Amino acid sequence: MMSHPAVHPVDAPPLSIDNGGGDGPPRIRVKDIPGMPGTPSSLVLRLLQSFFAIGACVVMSTTSDFPSVTAFRYLVAATGLQIIWSLLLAIIDIYGILVQRRFRNRRAVKLFAAGDGITSTLTFAAACASAGITVLIHNDLASCSRNHCVQFETSTGLAFMTWFAALPCFLLNLWTLASR
Amino acid sequence: MMSHPAVHPVDAPPLSIDNGGGDGPPRIRVKDIPGMPGTPSSLVLRLLQSFFAIGACVVMSTTSDFPSVTAFRYLVAATGLQIIWSLLLAIIDIYGILVQRRFRNRRAVKLFAAGDGITSTLTFAAACASAGITVLIHNDLASCSRNHCVQFETSTGLAFMTWFAALPCFLLNLWTLASR
Repeated sequence: MMSHPAVHPVDAPPLSIDNGGGDGPPRIRVKDIPGMPGTPSSLVLRLLQSFFAIGACVVMSTTSDFPSVTAFRYLVAATGLQIIWSLLLAIIDIYGILVQRRFRNRRAVKLFAAGDGITSTLTFAAACASAGITVLIHNDLASCSRNHCVQFETSTGLAFMTWFAALPCFLLNLWTLASR
Repeated sequence: MMSHPAVHPVDAPPLSIDNGGGDGPPRIRVKDIPGMPGTPSSLVLRLLQSFFAIGACVVMSTTSDFPSVTAFRYLVAATGLQIIWSLLLAIIDIYGILVQRRFRNRRAVKLFAAGDGITSTLTFAAACASAGITVLIHNDLASCSRNHCVQFETSTGLAFMTWFAALPCFLLNLWTLASR
């Protein structure tokens, strides 16, 4: 009633490092860095970026007098661009998680790093410019009674948080690009 | 009158990659990246940073009303920090060029990358905040007649140029750190 082990020795297949089941040369698997495109941590960062950027854009847009200040108009534009980029990358991350693939293609990582660098720099510049004007209105001129200081400050703070969420993505993509 | 070639074959010394003339194991020489600490191009970037930062700091300081605006005070502080850092690194570069050494020590490169990241971010933030206020005064309020617009704009422009000279240093140090 019991099965007997096979007594005929068979050749062990050659050990290869994750050759993907294909017949080509073995591909060496790069260690996953958290925050790489296609990982859950990257998706979390992208969703945080989108969330903060949408908040900054909406809060600033709801004030009646934001179009009179160039820096506030620029903040709306920069966070708008950040929203589009972050949501696009979030969709790519979801796709990567669903099909269990990481984006290790050098060209893709280059594109992601360039896009992250540009959008995060623009968002940071907008946040700094708005912060300069908000501090001018609040502290230097003390004219908050005639302005929507709370909205301006909330929007600026959210823009800074967008940048804090975008910076790790940029640095990690740059690191991935340099370390191969 | 003509020299004859030696006919006694000698053993060729074992080929080694720049073992520095020492008896230790051969050290592999990292390819020089232009802009690495201790190279002439790095020195040029450092001197440019110092030059622009000194310009921004001096032009802003000579206006009589800069202390009334927080962002302008911050610009003077940030460019002051940048001047100290850039001159310090310029001295290190000059030392490196004189003794013909590159700074490939991982800890040194880490320190340089962190310092460059912090100072360039602070300078960029100051430049953006000043730009926001300068544009507000010039375009939105059109009150250049009562303000030192030319000085404010010159100082802001020089701060941006400082950042443009500081950014390659930061990215190159980060790249050097990641690529080993």
